[in-house]
Parts: sequence; C-alpha cells; structure tokens
Amino acid sequence: MSTSERPEPETDAAGPTRVGVLGAHGRLGSEVCRAVEAADDLELAARVGSGDDVEELVRAGVQVVVDVTHPDVVMDHLRFCVEHGIHAVVGTTGFDDARLAQLQEWLDASPGTGVLVAPNFSVGAILMMRFAAQAARFFESVEVVELHHPDKADAPSGTAARTARLVAEARREAGCPPMPDATSSGPEGARGADVDGVRVHSLRVRGLVAHQEVVLGAPGETLTIRHDSLDRVSFAPGALLGVRRISGRPGLTVGLEELLDLG
Amino acid sequence: MSTSERPEPETDAAGPTRVGVLGAHGRLGSEVCRAVEAADDLELAARVGSGDDVEELVRAGVQVVVDVTHPDVVMDHLRFCVEHGIHAVVGTTGFDDARLAQLQEWLDASPGTGVLVAPNFSVGAILMMRFAAQAARFFESVEVVELHHPDKADAPSGTAARTARLVAEARREAGCPPMPDATSSGPEGARGADVDGVRVHSLRVRGLVAHQEVVLGAPGETLTIRHDSLDRVSFAPGALLGVRRISGRPGLTVGLEELLDLG
Amino acid sequence: MSTSERPEPETDAAGPTRVGVLGAHGRLGSEVCRAVEAADDLELAARVGSGDDVEELVRAGVQVVVDVTHPDVVMDHLRFCVEHGIHAVVGTTGFDDARLAQLQEWLDASPGTGVLVAPNFSVGAILMMRFAAQAARFFESVEVVELHHPDKADAPSGTAARTARLVAEARREAGCPPMPDATSSGPEGARGADVDGVRVHSLRVRGLVAHQEVVLGAPGETLTIRHDSLDRVSFAPGALLGVRRISGRPGLTVGLEELLDLG
Amino acid sequence: MSTSERPEPETDAAGPTRVGVLGAHGRLGSEVCRAVEAADDLELAARVGSGDDVEELVRAGVQVVVDVTHPDVVMDHLRFCVEHGIHAVVGTTGFDDARLAQLQEWLDASPGTGVLVAPNFSVGAILMMRFAAQAARFFESVEVVELHHPDKADAPSGTAARTARLVAEARREAGCPPMPDATSSGPEGARGADVDGVRVHSLRVRGLVAHQEVVLGAPGETLTIRHDSLDRVSFAPGALLGVRRISGRPGLTVGLEELLDLG
Repeated sequence: MSTSERPEPETDAAGPTRVGVLGAHGRLGSEVCRAVEAADDLELAARVGSGDDVEELVRAGVQVVVDVTHPDVVMDHLRFCVEHGIHAVVGTTGFDDARLAQLQEWLDASPGTGVLVAPNFSVGAILMMRFAAQAARFFESVEVVELHHPDKADAPSGTAARTARLVAEARREAGCPPMPDATSSGPEGARGADVDGVRVHSLRVRGLVAHQEVVLGAPGETLTIRHDSLDRVSFAPGALLGVRRISGRPGLTVGLEELLDLG
Repeated sequence: MSTSERPEPETDAAGPTRVGVLGAHGRLGSEVCRAVEAADDLELAARVGSGDDVEELVRAGVQVVVDVTHPDVVMDHLRFCVEHGIHAVVGTTGFDDARLAQLQEWLDASPGTGVLVAPNFSVGAILMMRFAAQAARFFESVEVVELHHPDKADAPSGTAARTARLVAEARREAGCPPMPDATSSGPEGARGADVDGVRVHSLRVRGLVAHQEVVLGAPGETLTIRHDSLDRVSFAPGALLGVRRISGRPGLTVGLEELLDLG
Repeated sequence: MSTSERPEPETDAAGPTRVGVLGAHGRLGSEVCRAVEAADDLELAARVGSGDDVEELVRAGVQVVVDVTHPDVVMDHLRFCVEHGIHAVVGTTGFDDARLAQLQEWLDASPGTGVLVAPNFSVGAILMMRFAAQAARFFESVEVVELHHPDKADAPSGTAARTARLVAEARREAGCPPMPDATSSGPEGARGADVDGVRVHSLRVRGLVAHQEVVLGAPGETLTIRHDSLDRVSFAPGALLGVRRISGRPGLTVGLEELLDLG
Repeated sequence: MSTSERPEPETDAAGPTRVGVLGAHGRLGSEVCRAVEAADDLELAARVGSGDDVEELVRAGVQVVVDVTHPDVVMDHLRFCVEHGIHAVVGTTGFDDARLAQLQEWLDASPGTGVLVAPNFSVGAILMMRFAAQAARFFESVEVVELHHPDKADAPSGTAARTARLVAEARREAGCPPMPDATSSGPEGARGADVDGVRVHSLRVRGLVAHQEVVLGAPGETLTIRHDSLDRVSFAPGALLGVRRISGRPGLTVGLEELLDLG
C-alpha cells in the first residue's frame, strides 16, 4: 500500500485514531498502551513486541505509531512507517545529526507523513528546561542540582547536562559574563561538574526517583525551578500529545516542546 | 519647555541617560538611586523627596524618571512628567482602570513619551508568575504557597493572589476542568484560601522575608517554581531595565514583563 | 499451649525468628512479607489473611506477629497472641486509651510477652515529628505544610495534626509565648487550619504521594524538616525493627520511637 | 581583684547580669551589643574594641564576656578573664586541642569560672547538625548540599564539612555499610567532594546568603533537614543563651549544644 493510497488519519472524524505501540511490552511501552486504552479519542490497534512483525501495523490499519524501542532497531521501524505513511512518535534516544538527516530524506519522499523525535516525553521536564533557558540571561548565577536513586550509572544525568547546555547557550546569545565564583580552596569536586561553564551537582540517594532543580540568582533574589518525576506514568501524557498532534504536522519535528504551543 | 523642544533621550549617544528619582529618600528609592549611580550608562541627575519641587526634574535635564512614591501623589507626578516629555517608570501600586485611562489620555497628547507602570520590579517574581501561567494548562493541579515574615498584614500576599488569578485565567482559556480534590473532612482552613478556584496557602514565619512557591502536578510528576526575595536590592535591576527601555517605547506599557523580550 | 510452655523467641540463637503476618494479603502486609523474607535473621512462618484461622500462628510456631489489619478485628488478634505468648507489632490505627488499658491488662497476665503499638512505621516520619518537637521551643514560629495526592479524604493528615500537637505541647512545656502573626485581612483559609495553636496547611496535588514539611523560624534564620514518603516499602524497615526488638521488651510499648535509642 | 574576692554573678538576683563585649565594633560584635541592650536581664557594661584596654572589663564590673575577636588575640583575652573570674562566651574560631588544653589549665586554677567555646552561635545550624547525626544511622544514603553567595572563598563550608564528619562518625559507631553509589561515568566533580565518605556539594549563587540541606534516604522515603541563615542577627540568641547559662556551669564547655538541654 503506497502512502498516497492511505487516507489521512482523521482525528476529528467519526472514529478514534488507530494507534500502534512498538516496544509494547517494555516498562515505558506498557504505560503508553495503558494510556492509549484509557483515552476516548484513541484506539490501541496494535501492540508490537521485540519478536513481532512490524507488518502488523499495516494489517491493523495503524495511523500513528509510538516507538519506544532501542537505538539499534528504531531506524528500521521508522523507514517502514514513513514508507507506509504511518505517522510516528519516537521516544528512543540516540538521534544524532546523521540519523536526523536520514529521517528527513525518507520524509521528503512521503510528504504527508509526520515524525516526532522526542528524547523526553515528560512535559514537566521539558518546561523546566525551557523556563531555565528563558530565565538564564536575567541572573548572574545559574547552577543545576539533579537527584536520583543510587543505582543510576551516569552522573550528571542526561537531562541535567542538556539543561546546562541550554542555559549556557542562552547566556552566550545574551552576552552574559561568566558567573561569579570566588572559590579558592577546598576538596576537589565540591563545586560540582563544569558542563559548558554551568556547575552541575549530582546526588545519589536511596529512596529518590528522578528530580532536578535549577537555581538562578541575582542580587537579593533567587528563582528555583524544580521537577520531580516519581513514576514513569508521567511520560504518557507527552506521548499522547505527540500522537494527537503529529498527523497535523507533516515532516520532521524534534522535541515535544514544538507541539506545546508555548509561544 | 514643550515636549517638541526636548531632544529625545539618546542612551546610545555621547552621554549617559539623565535619571531622576521621585521618592528618593524612601527605602526602595534609596536602592534605585544607588543602582543608578553604579551604572555606567546612567547618571543620577535628581533626587526628589516628599517635600521637594518636581520642577527640579526639568532644571536638572532629567530624561527618565523612576517614581516610587505613594498612590495619592503619583498621578500629579505623572501628569507633570508627561507634559514635559519626561519618560517615567512607575513602581507605585494602586493603578486601576480609571487611572490607566487618564494616563493614556495624557500620553496621547505627548506622542513621543513613554510610561511604564510596573506593580512589581522583581524580574524573578515576574518570571515566576509567567512560567506558572504558561505551565498551568499542562497539569491537573496547581496550588500556591507564599511565605512571609509575621509582621505582614495581608494574607494571601498580592503577588500570590495575582499568580492564582493568572493561573485560573490560563486554565479557563485552555478549557481545563476543575482541579481534583477529595477532601471531605478536617478543620476549616486546612485547604487554604480559594482565589478564583486556585488554592493559596500563606505561612507567616519569623526569619523569612518574601517567598513564593507554585506547585503544579500531573500523574507521576510535579513542577515547582519558587521565588525567594531576600533583599529589596532585588528590585533595582528591574527598575533600571525599565529606565533603559522606556524611552524607546512611547505610550503606555503595563507590566515589566512587556520589556523582557520573552517571546 | 500455654505461655509458660513456649520457649522465648531467641533471636540471637541458632535459628531465625519465626514471624507471622496478619493482614498478609493487603498492600502494606505484602510489603512486610517481602521484607521478612528478604531478612536473614527472620523467617516468614505464617501469612494470615482475612478469612484465615489465627490458630495457624500457633501451629506454625510463630514467635512474633506483625498485625496490619483493621481496627475492628485487631483487638481479638491481640488477645489471642498475648494469651499464647506471641509478641506483636501492631500497625493498625485507632488505639485510644480504653484499648491501651485493655491491652495492658492482658499483658499483665502474660508477663514475658511484648506488644508494640505503632501508629506509624516510617522511621523518617517519626524522626521528623521528634526533631520538630525538640526544636520547637527555640523558634518564635512553627508551621506545618503537608502535601498529598488529591484522592486523600482528610485534611490535614493525621501525621500533620499529630506533629502540630507535639509542637504545641513542647512549646507549652517550655513556656513559649503565642506565635507572632499580624494578619488582619484576607480571604478565609489563607492562614491554614489552627491545630492547638499551630498553623497547618494541606496541599492536594496530583503526582504527589505523601510529604510533610515543618518550618521553624527565629530572627534571621529558619530550620525546615521535610519528610517525603514515595513508596509504602518505606514502612518495612520500621516494622522489622519492631519485630527484632519487641521480644526483648516485655509489656506494652507505644510508638516505634521508643525502640530507636534516640537518647 | 582575685577570683575569690569577686562575688559570683547572680543572674537571678536584684540586678541584671553585667556583660562585656570584646570585638564590640565588628559586624557580629555589634549584633551582640544590640541584643544585650534589648534584653531585660542583661546590661551592656563594656564595649571593648581592638585598640581598647581589657582592664576596662574589670573597671566596669563585667560578670560575663562575649568574645568575638580574632584567633591571634583571643587566648590573651581568655587568660585575663579567667584570672579575674569573668565568665566567657567565645565565638572565635581556631580552637584546636592545644588551645583547649591550655584553657582547661587556666580554668583549673579558677574553679568557679566558666568558659564556653562555641564555634557556631546559630541554634538552627546546631540543631541541623545534631539531627543529621542522630538520623544518619537509619538511612542508607546521606548527602550534604550547602549553598552560599559567590564571594565565599572556601568550598565546602566549614559547617558542611563538620556536618559530614559528624554523620560519618555516627555511621561508623552504628556499623553502617558504605553508602550505595553505582556511578561509573561522568565528568569529574559531578558527585561532589568526599568528606570522610560523605558527599558534599557546594553551590555558589548570587542572592543567596548561607544555606545547608542534609538529604537522608532509605527505600521509599527521604528526610531532609535544611537550615537557612538570612541575617547575622540569627547569631545573637545563641550568644545570649551562652551568657545566661555559663555562670552556672564552671569549667570548660565546648559547643553551644551542651547548653540546649537536648537530652
């Protein structure tokens, strides 16, 4: 079935949008399936696990796919979906420039299809990063503290490092001077890691899940933006928002924030 | 001297902008004077106290005035400034629709002059309110906690009430349902004050200065935006930003946020 | 089997302590079972559910019982346990003076048996309350903020009300004056509920689990003690500590804090 | 005048206790003077500055001295005070074992005299450290975050390092295993400084004063103890408490906590 033969998903029309989930049996995939089933305007048409055939998506008449599989299989899935005019919302990590260019090429050949590449489905985390970057140029100092359970292997977290880079970029664009810091003595590490000129501190404490705080300070005042993620159910609303919007946004979209109408 | 005779303030030109402060001997006024004096691109040309003659502003060649006086004298000051083509940045409270209409009328007769009415000069507080309003529609629940020293007479604070109203307005526009709350028993007051459907809680604790926290929650995650104001020196940068921008923005501007280029 | 015939549980001896759980199939009971099974020095000898016969405890040679059932059956369980010389750790709520007196009477007749009545198994919550009460007399102001999910029916929470009463009692004993509060205007409820002279504020926000903060303030400084309970697995260590200690503490013990050796 | 000739300070008797302040013109000394003057049961009998003669203390009939001078002069002051039977409350830092031994020797020769050496007069900071040390053995993980203005030269702060050492000591005594931490990758410094096995993180942010947070975590729960010092006026109550108690406590006392009756 060629793309042109497929009717456009019509989310406003008679029936609910038919959704397929790739990686349906994983922890994040299960949450997405549950959320799709609970939504009146969506129908869970296909659950595809690691051993299953992706042709199932076509047989089930899937209009939008959510892909939460691994970096080493996700590109094959996306080629298949785009070729079949199935819109896709992708939560898998590891999209570098080469991958995005490849994806763009496939999408150019299937003009009505939309793909959202979203490294983070948490609306709260996205807003935290956006607000931190927007506020950064108004404050002399900005530091990032992230707090996770002690079984996490990397420090700082990917989200903390990305936040630091967004803050650094916003400050460079605004011509902010380096942050003040008179520290001249003390044990190594006390001042945290330097990520693009922004200090990042990583706590690893039993009982925590995933938390981050951005502290911004100017003379006489501080602004603190904190995100607490206590359950992976928090990723579902962002994934569903992507599912609902991507069919109306052909081509490549990177980052869920593009769909949040933040102005 | 008529407006047309006065040269436009040229902040980029030869000399620094000549600034006058009305209410110069008050606590906030003193901070503004100190900040103006410390800025290379500004010159403190006149300090006007409660018994002084405002004609001094003209004699001193003031281009931009900062008015931090009382609601009962501020309108006379503004009429004088607008008539003399002096731009004004006003931190005084109590501007209702009638006052704003009057001010607009005066400004219509003096087209090159700009007035900024800013109920809050704290950039941190403004960002807190803006971010809270922007984020409000993405979360099921939003509550406001404000914490102040116990000598404060009103509860909740003006900033907390305004934040609640901005949040409520954003949620109405987005069609959000009422917030969930299963509370069925308990002593009166535990759930705080209801300000336009948003719960506001006021703590009064010795040792605190002025603090506010907006807590937003969705399944599995919360976003918290907190502003701590520890010293009134925090109001100076916002006032100076107004001083630097208002000459390039003729007419009436309400709210410092309009000058922050937040997009 | 009479009490005198039963050997004392010997936790230090050859084998592990034999533990029975009453209410084993509930959410809290399941956690306790899991924790007992994971402990080297304990053996899960009996899981007793709502339809099961408590005689099973005797047949299984249970030395210590954990009871997490309902207030309307717990007294029957305790009478049975005490009569059979089985030590008990009770997490059920609703123990008033009459119930404690009855329990004491039964224990008087079975001198070697110990019962711990613990309305809260969370060590973190217990320490929060204790530290708040200890610190209360050194500060002019103390307020309590508790934050829970919006499906909770009561506000304030039982723990918050208990904390407020402990704080009030400590301040009365130390002769502290009433807390300062200049509030003279504002919508009802802004200042929270008055529990024994201590202000308590209840937030209900989706995404939260169970959290409490005690804010204490004196001129120039504040001390904040916060407890975050993110998972009911947090109740297990307290229950196990009770199990390990109660056999060495004949008679009635009220409150897990008595076993924490806090000095 | 020899010690034996001096009447004991009688704080409960007719008049107020006569207090002298050494270092009276410094920032901390000025606060202490203000606080003494504001207290009904105390009288500020002597303000001694850096160029003044300490004999003034005797002439003014001072009963208790508060010394907030420098490490290089404090020992001479203390020898003088002890020889003259004047009790002393010392806030100066730098008391090592040699100095304490010397002080003890002088006090042995003047049995009725009391000296309190208190490296920290803030009751809030003392309680934070004490509670952190008491709670440490009940949690798998403990980390310290301290936040200060960016003009501070040392990182971590002295209080943070001392807190970490007290926590480490309490855990050693209780036989706690090392804290869990799976971190295997990331930029240097992300995990903070290692102070006796406890991770300490130092933030330096404009607008902050002096703040510290101790985060303790066990499965499913965390306990956070936070101290915010916003104004050096917070040191006065601790100093006054020392003044009121030291005359009733002959000999050497180290640490204000000894006078807090914390049980």
